[in-house]
Amino acid sequence: MSGKGKSQSGLRLRVWRPKRTSPGAAPGIITPSDDARKPRLFVTSYNSDQLFEAPFDSMDGVLERLSRYPDLIHWVELKGFGDRKMLEDFCLHFGIHRLEMEDVINTYQRPKLEEFDDHLFIVTRLLHINSDVALRNDQLSLFLFKNTVITFQEGYEDHFEPIRSRLRTGKGQLRSASSDYMAYALLDSVVDHYFPLLEKLGEKLDELEDELFTKPTRSSLHRIQQIKRELIVLRRTVFAERDKVNDLLRTASGLIRDQTKLYLRDTYDHTIQVMDLVESYKEIVASLMEIYLSSVSFRLNQVMKVLAIISTIFIPLTFIVGVYGMNFSYTDPVSGEVLSWNMPELYSPFGYAGVMLFMLVLVVIQLVIFWRKGWLDKS
Amino acid sequence: MSGKGKSQSGLRLRVWRPKRTSPGAAPGIITPSDDARKPRLFVTSYNSDQLFEAPFDSMDGVLERLSRYPDLIHWVELKGFGDRKMLEDFCLHFGIHRLEMEDVINTYQRPKLEEFDDHLFIVTRLLHINSDVALRNDQLSLFLFKNTVITFQEGYEDHFEPIRSRLRTGKGQLRSASSDYMAYALLDSVVDHYFPLLEKLGEKLDELEDELFTKPTRSSLHRIQQIKRELIVLRRTVFAERDKVNDLLRTASGLIRDQTKLYLRDTYDHTIQVMDLVESYKEIVASLMEIYLSSVSFRLNQVMKVLAIISTIFIPLTFIVGVYGMNFSYTDPVSGEVLSWNMPELYSPFGYAGVMLFMLVLVVIQLVIFWRKGWLDKS
Amino acid sequence: MSGKGKSQSGLRLRVWRPKRTSPGAAPGIITPSDDARKPRLFVTSYNSDQLFEAPFDSMDGVLERLSRYPDLIHWVELKGFGDRKMLEDFCLHFGIHRLEMEDVINTYQRPKLEEFDDHLFIVTRLLHINSDVALRNDQLSLFLFKNTVITFQEGYEDHFEPIRSRLRTGKGQLRSASSDYMAYALLDSVVDHYFPLLEKLGEKLDELEDELFTKPTRSSLHRIQQIKRELIVLRRTVFAERDKVNDLLRTASGLIRDQTKLYLRDTYDHTIQVMDLVESYKEIVASLMEIYLSSVSFRLNQVMKVLAIISTIFIPLTFIVGVYGMNFSYTDPVSGEVLSWNMPELYSPFGYAGVMLFMLVLVVIQLVIFWRKGWLDKS
Amino acid sequence: MSGKGKSQSGLRLRVWRPKRTSPGAAPGIITPSDDARKPRLFVTSYNSDQLFEAPFDSMDGVLERLSRYPDLIHWVELKGFGDRKMLEDFCLHFGIHRLEMEDVINTYQRPKLEEFDDHLFIVTRLLHINSDVALRNDQLSLFLFKNTVITFQEGYEDHFEPIRSRLRTGKGQLRSASSDYMAYALLDSVVDHYFPLLEKLGEKLDELEDELFTKPTRSSLHRIQQIKRELIVLRRTVFAERDKVNDLLRTASGLIRDQTKLYLRDTYDHTIQVMDLVESYKEIVASLMEIYLSSVSFRLNQVMKVLAIISTIFIPLTFIVGVYGMNFSYTDPVSGEVLSWNMPELYSPFGYAGVMLFMLVLVVIQLVIFWRKGWLDKS
Amino acid sequence: MSGKGKSQSGLRLRVWRPKRTSPGAAPGIITPSDDARKPRLFVTSYNSDQLFEAPFDSMDGVLERLSRYPDLIHWVELKGFGDRKMLEDFCLHFGIHRLEMEDVINTYQRPKLEEFDDHLFIVTRLLHINSDVALRNDQLSLFLFKNTVITFQEGYEDHFEPIRSRLRTGKGQLRSASSDYMAYALLDSVVDHYFPLLEKLGEKLDELEDELFTKPTRSSLHRIQQIKRELIVLRRTVFAERDKVNDLLRTASGLIRDQTKLYLRDTYDHTIQVMDLVESYKEIVASLMEIYLSSVSFRLNQVMKVLAIISTIFIPLTFIVGVYGMNFSYTDPVSGEVLSWNMPELYSPFGYAGVMLFMLVLVVIQLVIFWRKGWLDKS
Repeated sequence: MSGKGKSQSGLRLRVWRPKRTSPGAAPGIITPSDDARKPRLFVTSYNSDQLFEAPFDSMDGVLERLSRYPDLIHWVELKGFGDRKMLEDFCLHFGIHRLEMEDVINTYQRPKLEEFDDHLFIVTRLLHINSDVALRNDQLSLFLFKNTVITFQEGYEDHFEPIRSRLRTGKGQLRSASSDYMAYALLDSVVDHYFPLLEKLGEKLDELEDELFTKPTRSSLHRIQQIKRELIVLRRTVFAERDKVNDLLRTASGLIRDQTKLYLRDTYDHTIQVMDLVESYKEIVASLMEIYLSSVSFRLNQVMKVLAIISTIFIPLTFIVGVYGMNFSYTDPVSGEVLSWNMPELYSPFGYAGVMLFMLVLVVIQLVIFWRKGWLDKS
Repeated sequence: MSGKGKSQSGLRLRVWRPKRTSPGAAPGIITPSDDARKPRLFVTSYNSDQLFEAPFDSMDGVLERLSRYPDLIHWVELKGFGDRKMLEDFCLHFGIHRLEMEDVINTYQRPKLEEFDDHLFIVTRLLHINSDVALRNDQLSLFLFKNTVITFQEGYEDHFEPIRSRLRTGKGQLRSASSDYMAYALLDSVVDHYFPLLEKLGEKLDELEDELFTKPTRSSLHRIQQIKRELIVLRRTVFAERDKVNDLLRTASGLIRDQTKLYLRDTYDHTIQVMDLVESYKEIVASLMEIYLSSVSFRLNQVMKVLAIISTIFIPLTFIVGVYGMNFSYTDPVSGEVLSWNMPELYSPFGYAGVMLFMLVLVVIQLVIFWRKGWLDKS
Repeated sequence: MSGKGKSQSGLRLRVWRPKRTSPGAAPGIITPSDDARKPRLFVTSYNSDQLFEAPFDSMDGVLERLSRYPDLIHWVELKGFGDRKMLEDFCLHFGIHRLEMEDVINTYQRPKLEEFDDHLFIVTRLLHINSDVALRNDQLSLFLFKNTVITFQEGYEDHFEPIRSRLRTGKGQLRSASSDYMAYALLDSVVDHYFPLLEKLGEKLDELEDELFTKPTRSSLHRIQQIKRELIVLRRTVFAERDKVNDLLRTASGLIRDQTKLYLRDTYDHTIQVMDLVESYKEIVASLMEIYLSSVSFRLNQVMKVLAIISTIFIPLTFIVGVYGMNFSYTDPVSGEVLSWNMPELYSPFGYAGVMLFMLVLVVIQLVIFWRKGWLDKS
Repeated sequence: MSGKGKSQSGLRLRVWRPKRTSPGAAPGIITPSDDARKPRLFVTSYNSDQLFEAPFDSMDGVLERLSRYPDLIHWVELKGFGDRKMLEDFCLHFGIHRLEMEDVINTYQRPKLEEFDDHLFIVTRLLHINSDVALRNDQLSLFLFKNTVITFQEGYEDHFEPIRSRLRTGKGQLRSASSDYMAYALLDSVVDHYFPLLEKLGEKLDELEDELFTKPTRSSLHRIQQIKRELIVLRRTVFAERDKVNDLLRTASGLIRDQTKLYLRDTYDHTIQVMDLVESYKEIVASLMEIYLSSVSFRLNQVMKVLAIISTIFIPLTFIVGVYGMNFSYTDPVSGEVLSWNMPELYSPFGYAGVMLFMLVLVVIQLVIFWRKGWLDKS
Repeated sequence: MSGKGKSQSGLRLRVWRPKRTSPGAAPGIITPSDDARKPRLFVTSYNSDQLFEAPFDSMDGVLERLSRYPDLIHWVELKGFGDRKMLEDFCLHFGIHRLEMEDVINTYQRPKLEEFDDHLFIVTRLLHINSDVALRNDQLSLFLFKNTVITFQEGYEDHFEPIRSRLRTGKGQLRSASSDYMAYALLDSVVDHYFPLLEKLGEKLDELEDELFTKPTRSSLHRIQQIKRELIVLRRTVFAERDKVNDLLRTASGLIRDQTKLYLRDTYDHTIQVMDLVESYKEIVASLMEIYLSSVSFRLNQVMKVLAIISTIFIPLTFIVGVYGMNFSYTDPVSGEVLSWNMPELYSPFGYAGVMLFMLVLVVIQLVIFWRKGWLDKS
């Protein structure tokens, strides 16, 4: 049973709460959790001609890089929040509000867009399936400045390898476009991650449906409930994600240019498609539950029908043989007189054969009745 | 079972995903799938006086035709996306954005309208029943320019024969009107395709309801579930289709003239009627599910009633005959003394007849009770 | 069963489809169905002083009447669409668009209002109960011109006798008011028809509820399903009807004067009341379904309780009498030795009486237990 | 059963229909029903210094009072609509439209606000519990003029005694404020009537829930259904009432002053609270239904468990004693030869004791199995 | 059972009604309930340099403090409404409307914001778990003036200890900011209280789900219902709370400065997160109900399967042994003639062994059939 508990734990709904120590604590306190990973800084700087990719140990290197190449687009990545000082340096050097940084490190935020004068703050949730099939729900926080995109994530996984490839090959719009196109590319990639997830879910649903029609078990119910929970998580995430992309489309901020909005509209279409599917899946899961319940009833029916047939056939027969098991005496024990009304059948030469034949006829009649009533059908 | 699996496969919800190789790949990449069909180009050019219909092998012929007859309305059809070069030529010569062309060849788009300066891009889904009764869900992509309508579809089927006839007969408004009327005619024809579909579904629902009231089986449940899935697909398609027609009605683009909007309002009415019906069908399917469940319970009741009647009648009788099957001795085996308290009934001359009569009376009383309780009723 | 099928047919959801021969056919084609009735023309012309009522054979007479009395209000009625020429004459002489006339003869339109420069086109659905209790769903199409109201209906029934009476008595506002008040009077009369319908439905629901609590049968379920279907039809009709009246209230067209809008607001209130009731009925029908399901379970419980009581009482007794039906020999058949451990009870003088008494006590104890458990209660 | 029918009748959904004789009859006809009560006129006139309260026999007295004290606020009450002439006098002297008066006497109107140049027409529904516990749903119609408030109600009950007291004590704002404050006081009092109703309902729900968990009966279901119906009526009334108060808050009419709107906002808050509660109650009723259904299933389980335990224990035992009731002969009846394979147990000295012991062991084993399976638990 | 009733009482939905004595009583009457606690006044005055905290006995001291330090921010707390005079003094000295004060002491108000010229009136609900695990639902009423924040609460609990600490340490923005930041800090703290509550609920749901899959009992249903009720209360509270924070964000009142709105946006995000979770929990509770129902059915199936297996095996066997318990005579009692057709099996040397073997074979066959049908599986 422990195995089950474990596989569920990934699905249990985690409360997206501020990590403050107690209700009433001050907002904007930047305290990474104790098990936060050591930070890794990585900067990708490019324009259509140049491309530099390099890890950095400290903020100084990053800042030096940024000031040396003011004409390049910079994508600054921070993975791991183990260094509070470094997080505060980000606030200081990039003008990020402490409340924003609090949202960055409390990684249970809803997807959202916040607009500031010189930058946009975008929180996005990266749902993906891990190598060990568990649903992972990571947070990617993104700051979009004029020439710089900063992304924060808690773990070390790299979800953006295809974007790095596109940068390296140098083809396509990515190298030549502005920083907002880079932000778009990252957000679009996040939304693209939903599709394999949904395909997986769709397959699971199809398998479950087949199973429910052929051989429903208690574990089917268990899996229905798991998918329901996954869909609840997916739904509230995708809903917020869609609203966020919509906010980006409607923002009056000059940081998102009109040509980029054309691409964001494409991303928006994708979020709507995801929403559509999640809603459809929810309806299907609801009907799977109904099918499961009907299957349980159906199997009860089957069991009861067998019981009823056996009982209805044999109970009267047992009564009949009981009759001829009675000990009514054919002779008076005292006088020895013959009591000829007492069970004369027992002394008829063909009594036994007659009773057996009678019972056989009875069984045949009953079977015919059952067959007519459809009790002998499979379904 | 394989047959069932097959018939279902058409209903399984396909994920409408971008066909990009991996999350994060570049947008606007025009890569037809490997099994895409060889393209077929067909151009219909007309005004109230002239009508030319001709297939073409290459874009050059098409462009030459367009430039030679600048005053005609041209309907350019491309069926089959097997030639990437040709698709890119369309982008180049007609000023179609690469993102649009990506939507054209990834044929799982939601119905939508996108407005550009010199053209409208309309995605529409053509749901129809195939010759082999499976629900088909094709995509028709339409570009509306000043004098030209371009349509793209993946397969070779011709859904627009009636429109060609109307062009050829030369009667009606179609020949004399502008390109937007042609676009309207195509869209209206797509929406018209829903009606036979819905009629079919309505008939299926009526049949199912009759079946559920007379002889519900496990396969009824299966078909309820199938129709539910079909309605889920239909609903999300029609919803988007209606929004799209509404967008067309409200567009400020000069490409749709006011007289054409009058006709589009008619199409809009039809999409609303389809929506109404789909919603009504959904409610009916939900109640069919309830009827199925109640039928399963009802049949269980029937079975249990028969079992209860048989048991309640025969179990007491069996007890009685059991009593007279007991071997209490009327004489002491050692002393030979008569034990006159031990089952004297067995030695009464009319003991057997009396017991049989008593049991008969018992059965009659029970039957009267059952009849009063309504257990002997059919329903 | 055929009778049932027949009574249902009136409720089956008819697809409100355009009657075009095939998807893609031209719009605005006026082709009455083959079984359309012979047209009957009737014109009522009036002002506060004069009133003429007369049938006409052809459009010529009608037009002559209209031109001779330009100062009267004219109500032109056409019943039966069997004459295509006449319908086209209406288009020609009154400036009715061919799309409108198509909606008139395809009598499955949603209620709607369409505004034109010189007239309003109003489609309204007349739901009423026929003499033979079936729900009838007719279409009334109404054109409102400056001084003329034209109504079209497919059948010959006269739903507006009270309005004719009001015209003839000459009292009330109807004779002195303008043509828009006549249109209001007709529309209001259509909405008034819903109320007897709803009263009928309410009575049916009350009867069903009583029946479900006293003696639910399979046919109750059948009637629940029928009412559900009726409510689905009613709901989508009333919804559209309400929207239409609301459109009339908000129209900027000068054809509806402000004093008439005061009356239309009254009609609007009525449609809202109808909506309220239909929604309430839907909730009640849903709960009737639940009551039916619980009744089926309840009756199963009753049956099982009887079975359980009988079985639990008699199965142990049957075992006991079975024990004393065993043939363990009190004497060794070979040696004749007495085996005094083998069923000595059988040879005790009061063995039989003792066993019978023991079983009686057992039954009494069981009955007390059942009574305490509430199994002997009615409910 | 008749008692039940009676108590229900108060809850049955009455159709709120116009009382016109037939669909199509003229609007604005003021015909009180035949059983309408004799009218009672009562006028309360006051300002901060003076207070007159007096009944009147006819309109003349009322009008004379109004014209004699033009500076006082007048509250004119009419109870009972038995005098058509008097109702028409109201129309005449106060400029009330005939359609309004029709709504006054057809006492099944939805709550609503209608604005006219010189007065507001407010329909409000007074839901309260009668002395005999039935839900009463009366209509109060209110006309607000510059210095006059006119209220109409069908019956003679006085729901506004507390307001009269406040007038008489002369304290508070009521005496010094304008007529709109009087209208507010009356409307607020109507909304206040909902709270005891809701408390009653809440208590009923709590009792029902306790009953369902301890001893659910068929009558619980009956009461659930009753409450559902009450909530349906309550909900549609409160919804309209809230909209009406909101309309009053937003009206541009000068008849409602800003300081009074402050108080109306308070009333509005109360209607929202009522709505909240009604919605919560609806959810609770829905879950009570589920609990009832689960209770029915649970009790069936209990019954079946007892049946299964008894059967599973005794059916095998009965088989065993049946075995030893078989009559296989130990000696050949003809040859007298001993057939030593035929049931030698019967002739063993400890055969009987052995079989009894064996069966005892069997029963103990079965009980252990049942205990392990939890079948012997209470729940 | 009393224990259960008690633990529930905290969850029963209390009617949030005005405490007026009867419908129609005057509004704005400030009458504390009889069991209201003795008031405790406490004032915290601060700016970035100074901090005074002191309890007060009377309003005089408070007013003197406020007038002596006009440049400090004052947080005036009143706990306990036992002194009517003091409440009226608040109205008098701070210009609080009597309707507002009525809302303060009738502690069942919905969360709301009311704007006045010189102050904002904010009602907020403080849901928290008590030491004895019961859900507590207190009201905090807050008045925001230019330099003063006044809070009212009924009981003596202190929910704002962390805020006092922040004031005392003097760090953070709280000491240096204006009174609106203080109001924000209090409101944010209230919303923060929801998170531990939701975590608790989430744990309960997870435990319940595990229990339902392993060992569902009647008490599980009871707890599902409890959580449902808690969620209903939570939901309507959080909904109103969110609307209120949104109103604060959109207020045009100068009392809330833009920098504070930045923080309020953070609070708003938290209310949305709470809403999301409550909605998700509601869906999970609904599916737990379904799982419970399916579990009840499942256990019934298990019981019936055991019954059916035992019955189906033994009923035929019992019939067979019954057959050989019949007393058909092998010899005619009178003539002594051998009736060789009457049960010759009984006199065969291996009759007994044969019958026993036959029955064994029968049992084996039946077990194989059951095993194939899956009746012997656990699930």
